[in-house]
Amino acid sequence: MRSNADDDRRWLAVALEQAQIGWDEGGIPIGAALVHDGELVSVGRNRRVQQGSVIRHGETDCLENAGRLTARTYQASVLYTTLSPCFMCAGTVLLYRIPRIVVGENRTFETSEELLRSHGVQVDVLDDVECHTLMQRLLGDKPGLWNEDIGVEP
Amino acid sequence: MRSNADDDRRWLAVALEQAQIGWDEGGIPIGAALVHDGELVSVGRNRRVQQGSVIRHGETDCLENAGRLTARTYQASVLYTTLSPCFMCAGTVLLYRIPRIVVGENRTFETSEELLRSHGVQVDVLDDVECHTLMQRLLGDKPGLWNEDIGVEP
Repeated sequence: MRSNADDDRRWLAVALEQAQIGWDEGGIPIGAALVHDGELVSVGRNRRVQQGSVIRHGETDCLENAGRLTARTYQASVLYTTLSPCFMCAGTVLLYRIPRIVVGENRTFETSEELLRSHGVQVDVLDDVECHTLMQRLLGDKPGLWNEDIGVEP
Repeated sequence: MRSNADDDRRWLAVALEQAQIGWDEGGIPIGAALVHDGELVSVGRNRRVQQGSVIRHGETDCLENAGRLTARTYQASVLYTTLSPCFMCAGTVLLYRIPRIVVGENRTFETSEELLRSHGVQVDVLDDVECHTLMQRLLGDKPGLWNEDIGVEP
């Protein structure tokens, strides 16, 4: 996978915009963007609050919004996400053999990066302050909602 | 987790009914059922064809249909599925810390059982002939559709 720092910041900003929209909707501020061959395919954001969904995290919502793609397309794509993926989203990356993910931050949450790397996925963490700040607002204001999203008892 | 062979066959039959409905709809014949404390919570089936969904496998559709549950509920539930889970569905089981899954068959497909067991999930495989027969019909009639569902190039 080609990797260009300017492109990565640009696409992460698209994912971050989704996270901000989610926050403004009263939801969990995690967003994602799928990029194939330098072109944006789809965006997504966590929809737990907005749709009562337990499977539409930022990454899975983004992939769902992309629709049915060929295996070849997934295998030449990069998934941008504002937060390090949970096991569900990491498993989705493994299912579709997406070869690279770019993570906004992993200080708030990190559980699957070793699994992803053990399967050959390139995981690049940008340690982005804005991604982190949004999550810290969630943890401060709505800790129960965050715990629900990661299957933890409040 | 309590485990009773008659109960397991009974709940697997509920998941298998979903798989059969999916097949009759022209879809991928994989179904699931979520059981909490001996009571059926929800059922689901693969919706790739029916809804153009890339994230609604049998297991994830079932969990989505259950709605927002408490962490405590997931952690006292059993997920029945007609086919051994892909990484996405296994990751969802890990996210919500579902402690036990019962699998109809794993002869057609098996990729995540080691991962699940390494995280303490009890995986019981019933080696059910009817679950296997439905999948063999899919592989015979629509191999491209199955490959798409598991991210493999036709």
